[in-house]
Amino acid sequence: MGLKELFSPRAVAVVGASSRELTIGYRIIENLLDFGYTGPIYPVNPKGGEIRGLKAYPSILDTPDPVDVAHIVIRNKYVPACVEDCAKKDIKAVIVNTAGFREIGPQGAALEEQLVAIAKETGIRVFGPNCQGIINTDPAVRAYCNFTFTRPTPGHISIVAQSGGVGEVIHQRITELGVGVRQYASNGNACDVSIPEIIEHWGQDEQTKVIVVHIESLPDPRAFLEVTTQVARQKPILAMVVGRTSEGAKAVASHTGRLMEQLTAVELVFDKAGIVSFRSIEELCQSAIGFALQPVPAGNRVGMIANTGGPAIIATDELIEGGMVMPPLSQRTEQLLHEKLYAEASVNNPIDVLATAGPEHFAAAINALLDDDGVDAIFLNFVTPFFVDTLGVAREIADANRRSHKPIVATVMTEKKGWAETLAVIRDSGVPTYDMPETGARVLASMGRYAALLKRPSERPASFSDVDASRARLIVATARRAGKACLAADEGFELLTCYGIPVAQYKSANDAEECVAAADEIGYPVVLKVDAETVVHKTESGGVVLGIRDRDALREQAEQLAARFAEVSPRLLVQEQLPGGTGVPPVVVREVIVGAKAVAGLGHVVMFGLGGIYVEVLQDVSFKVTPVAKREAQEMIESLQTYPLLTGMRGQAGVDLKVLTEIIQRVSQMLVDNPEIRELDINPLFAFQHGAKAADVRVIV
Amino acid sequence: MGLKELFSPRAVAVVGASSRELTIGYRIIENLLDFGYTGPIYPVNPKGGEIRGLKAYPSILDTPDPVDVAHIVIRNKYVPACVEDCAKKDIKAVIVNTAGFREIGPQGAALEEQLVAIAKETGIRVFGPNCQGIINTDPAVRAYCNFTFTRPTPGHISIVAQSGGVGEVIHQRITELGVGVRQYASNGNACDVSIPEIIEHWGQDEQTKVIVVHIESLPDPRAFLEVTTQVARQKPILAMVVGRTSEGAKAVASHTGRLMEQLTAVELVFDKAGIVSFRSIEELCQSAIGFALQPVPAGNRVGMIANTGGPAIIATDELIEGGMVMPPLSQRTEQLLHEKLYAEASVNNPIDVLATAGPEHFAAAINALLDDDGVDAIFLNFVTPFFVDTLGVAREIADANRRSHKPIVATVMTEKKGWAETLAVIRDSGVPTYDMPETGARVLASMGRYAALLKRPSERPASFSDVDASRARLIVATARRAGKACLAADEGFELLTCYGIPVAQYKSANDAEECVAAADEIGYPVVLKVDAETVVHKTESGGVVLGIRDRDALREQAEQLAARFAEVSPRLLVQEQLPGGTGVPPVVVREVIVGAKAVAGLGHVVMFGLGGIYVEVLQDVSFKVTPVAKREAQEMIESLQTYPLLTGMRGQAGVDLKVLTEIIQRVSQMLVDNPEIRELDINPLFAFQHGAKAADVRVIV
Repeated sequence: MGLKELFSPRAVAVVGASSRELTIGYRIIENLLDFGYTGPIYPVNPKGGEIRGLKAYPSILDTPDPVDVAHIVIRNKYVPACVEDCAKKDIKAVIVNTAGFREIGPQGAALEEQLVAIAKETGIRVFGPNCQGIINTDPAVRAYCNFTFTRPTPGHISIVAQSGGVGEVIHQRITELGVGVRQYASNGNACDVSIPEIIEHWGQDEQTKVIVVHIESLPDPRAFLEVTTQVARQKPILAMVVGRTSEGAKAVASHTGRLMEQLTAVELVFDKAGIVSFRSIEELCQSAIGFALQPVPAGNRVGMIANTGGPAIIATDELIEGGMVMPPLSQRTEQLLHEKLYAEASVNNPIDVLATAGPEHFAAAINALLDDDGVDAIFLNFVTPFFVDTLGVAREIADANRRSHKPIVATVMTEKKGWAETLAVIRDSGVPTYDMPETGARVLASMGRYAALLKRPSERPASFSDVDASRARLIVATARRAGKACLAADEGFELLTCYGIPVAQYKSANDAEECVAAADEIGYPVVLKVDAETVVHKTESGGVVLGIRDRDALREQAEQLAARFAEVSPRLLVQEQLPGGTGVPPVVVREVIVGAKAVAGLGHVVMFGLGGIYVEVLQDVSFKVTPVAKREAQEMIESLQTYPLLTGMRGQAGVDLKVLTEIIQRVSQMLVDNPEIRELDINPLFAFQHGAKAADVRVIV
Repeated sequence: MGLKELFSPRAVAVVGASSRELTIGYRIIENLLDFGYTGPIYPVNPKGGEIRGLKAYPSILDTPDPVDVAHIVIRNKYVPACVEDCAKKDIKAVIVNTAGFREIGPQGAALEEQLVAIAKETGIRVFGPNCQGIINTDPAVRAYCNFTFTRPTPGHISIVAQSGGVGEVIHQRITELGVGVRQYASNGNACDVSIPEIIEHWGQDEQTKVIVVHIESLPDPRAFLEVTTQVARQKPILAMVVGRTSEGAKAVASHTGRLMEQLTAVELVFDKAGIVSFRSIEELCQSAIGFALQPVPAGNRVGMIANTGGPAIIATDELIEGGMVMPPLSQRTEQLLHEKLYAEASVNNPIDVLATAGPEHFAAAINALLDDDGVDAIFLNFVTPFFVDTLGVAREIADANRRSHKPIVATVMTEKKGWAETLAVIRDSGVPTYDMPETGARVLASMGRYAALLKRPSERPASFSDVDASRARLIVATARRAGKACLAADEGFELLTCYGIPVAQYKSANDAEECVAAADEIGYPVVLKVDAETVVHKTESGGVVLGIRDRDALREQAEQLAARFAEVSPRLLVQEQLPGGTGVPPVVVREVIVGAKAVAGLGHVVMFGLGGIYVEVLQDVSFKVTPVAKREAQEMIESLQTYPLLTGMRGQAGVDLKVLTEIIQRVSQMLVDNPEIRELDINPLFAFQHGAKAADVRVIV
């Protein structure tokens, strides 16, 4: 609501307009004029008069109708009243450039809440505060509602950035690289108009082919996830991952004034949504250009053409490390190349046409790759020898690009002044052209990454019907009502059972005799555990006895445990002894962990990994955001470094991956149904050749 | 020998000079003239006449004396005779630009061998063939002996590249970035003048402050290692690692015509030598500029100043991931900043002076960091708000740089046309200035990497005197004389014993009775193994019996093994049973592997890792090139992901790291003394809390 008018306003007012050049109130008017805004501009200043030749109005209420967007650049304390005036005038959106809100502390936060309240009440949309603004290069609009300095050419990349500084850097760089931008937005504190809304808006904008996103925190991660999941299926979304190190995260916190606990989850959100993520602004900008100019490859198979070997080697390394493959070319292609290239040329992939190759050789190689069904994308490495008709080569490349349905990416290594025309012919044809082989290769690899994301089935998470959700809710609610932070062992097991997650047979007991009765039912050998909220590390504190073989031993151990933990008056838990676990396993068995943690506003992050030293020393674990679909559960298992230990090796059978996949999904469903669960730790879960059983569980609510 | 004249010739002749513009024979003369070569140029062409106004001589023998360098651009088959003529004329070096030598197959290789023979016989140096040439920008020389197009400005970066294509890309990029180059060399097939020689030459050239290296193969890795180890202690050497993927390595092979088995060793050689390695040409070029303009930091502690948060976060992530740290600033610094910056400024590290900060604020922050002993380098993130005196800020940065002994690296984010003067003031002061925060951060991190390399003690490898080297040599020689590829088990153990590497007690036996006699000596329990050259995987093929407790069992097992492997008529090996290995270890024990592989022309690469699944599934192993010094042996152990398993965890004691460190060094000494060893595999080596013992060894000669 209101975003159409925000980006395509019929008229723009600037409240706080000024004729002093070094002010934002002047700069915005100048930008609107210079960029050729197609609607009327109304400066607002109590003194009236003229600003840059435009009549200034004493109040926003005095401006002619209709006004869709008003910039507000007056002092922070006057902003709320001004927004109310704007609402009265039926202005659709205000861009509050003024700073001094949430970012300065409680006083500013209170002012910001007033803005939110006015927006809710009146329906006016608030963009900002403490923000730059928007740009729309649509020739019918040309709205430069921003105080920055980059003069864009109309194009197909739209950029949204939480940090105005970074947004401007991205905008400048893409413009410097000679590629056009469609729309731009940097919404600062984002108290009302949100980044997900803007992305959704651009999802419907036909002229936006690529969306570039810079975020430093996710105020509403679930909304972000839902919107981007939809939009990323239609057009590529490219995003920076920032705050990756704890020092970086600290810098985010001190910058945005929020401790972003969920930052660790951002990369998982990007992955789940199908966003192509980056760790370098330069690479992101270069890739945006590749996406803007070329089709998405059908797959990851690259055919490379070079006229010198060195750069081809560098590009090959980068492509392979980026997940692409360099398949052998078809026999027909090889045959063709043999006929048309020099005898010494290499007709393998990469094809080396040799430094002496001219237009006809390049044309033959490109056409051969265009016709080879085993190749999804073409990568060109072109150095410009002075004894070659490089302009002719350029024209062949340009011509091929016009006919091609496969993406073509080029690295042109040349002395830019001497070969300006050659370069221009390639660039102007729409082939993204890079200076360095690794740069071009990384761009093509990022396009391959998006192609792979598009191919993922958009699978609904399973909904298991054999679950007792209401019983589970009751267990959680009861524990919370009793003021417990951690469920008792039997409650935890019962919760798992409600969701069809297999657990080792167990029974709770209050004393040695009840233990014996329980063991009689379960059958020896048994495990005895202490069960008390305060005993968190049961094994380390001696609260677990394994392999008890008979009643006498059990009785003795139960009494000892009760005595040892007397001050916490624990309950006891008798459990079936699962096979394996110590010594040479008599059966195929692996101890795995399924864990989870709630992330505010998002849901839960589920973790999977092999237990023991694998998680402790190697930290070999995988994560997904709930709800976890089947494919995702499989990915969690398969992406582990220790995956071969689960599939079996050296002729040993593997464990039941089907059951593990299902358990992860069932855990996910349990978490979605019970958002009150803050932490979950099924550790160990014994995985057998057939089936699996949870041996211990910890649930924090 | 001859390199001084090659790079600073008193006169240059061009044999095969031409007046046709699109020829190399014309281009070189033009380049020499255009770049202002300070000596005479003698075109040589049988037709005589004039070329670009210079008198052409019918033969090299007709040119005036003295000539130090002759380019040769005539047909390949005439090159050897021409080089002989050059030698007669006492020319010091020929640059053979002509192609058609080793790279085209056996015929060309034979021609190339003739060149090598002439060089050896006459002392003339041959640069190339199939090469570009050299450039020396020294104002007293200005020798552009090359057919490329980059016009350098004199500076302090020298570039040597095996691939002319990549060399030219590097040269172009550095020049485009506005930084000067000292010397350039691309020696193609490198039949005589080698890259190590060139690096050694530049090691002694005072005006060369940074050496950039691009290699695709190492014809003489040992010479390269020795030279670069020396030079890298005096000045930074930056190098690309190429052929990292198997596809990339394949591309190298098809490009250079050599299957470079040792490519996997290149990164190890770089590390051992103290070379700063890169995986991107762009990053290498950007870093070269940092090294050329700034001092090497004393350590890895960075103080960052920013006037907007977003880019600071990105730079922080990159610095930390690149091995730098962002320490808290001293109390004095914080105090100073509190006094001099805006109240809302962040005085932590990164320091945020705020977007409104002017020259005095930047000056205060830079000076505070210059004076803080806890900071080794300064990183600036500067966006240029239009309401700030950015030129004043630039002048403060420039001024601080003139006074600073700490490196300063800057990211300046701006609209380059509008802020050209601001940018120029910073750049001209010698502060390396980058567009993107991650670019600048990676440069500073590479400087930190070099600082760390410089700090490594230049330690001589240990030479253990308690070894029986002549006995070891005899064992190896005897095995080779007998035509054995693989030593027998007892020979392998004896070899280890010669070098003081502890082994499990063992005895060879031919039948069951000899086994019993051996076990009586060793003491039960024992291990019985089949020992035959053809049985490589003893355990998998059932050739190992563990834990034999008495004579009867031993006799029975020995007879069974002899029967099962009857067709290879094996010997048997009786060994002491080492503690641990199955079940819960009764003592602290870890199975580790020490392996090695010979690399032609280099020596050996030694491997260390934990045995079993750690090496098989996780491939958690480390490598070093012989001779392995103590620090390196320690690094091999400490760099493992599974290192905590060796130091002990959860209160468990660790294994004897001192002994492991020593064993690695002893293995290294054994390999250096016995270059005939092709492969070595001590697996497992049992490591205990005190001491270690090899349980099995395989030696291929």
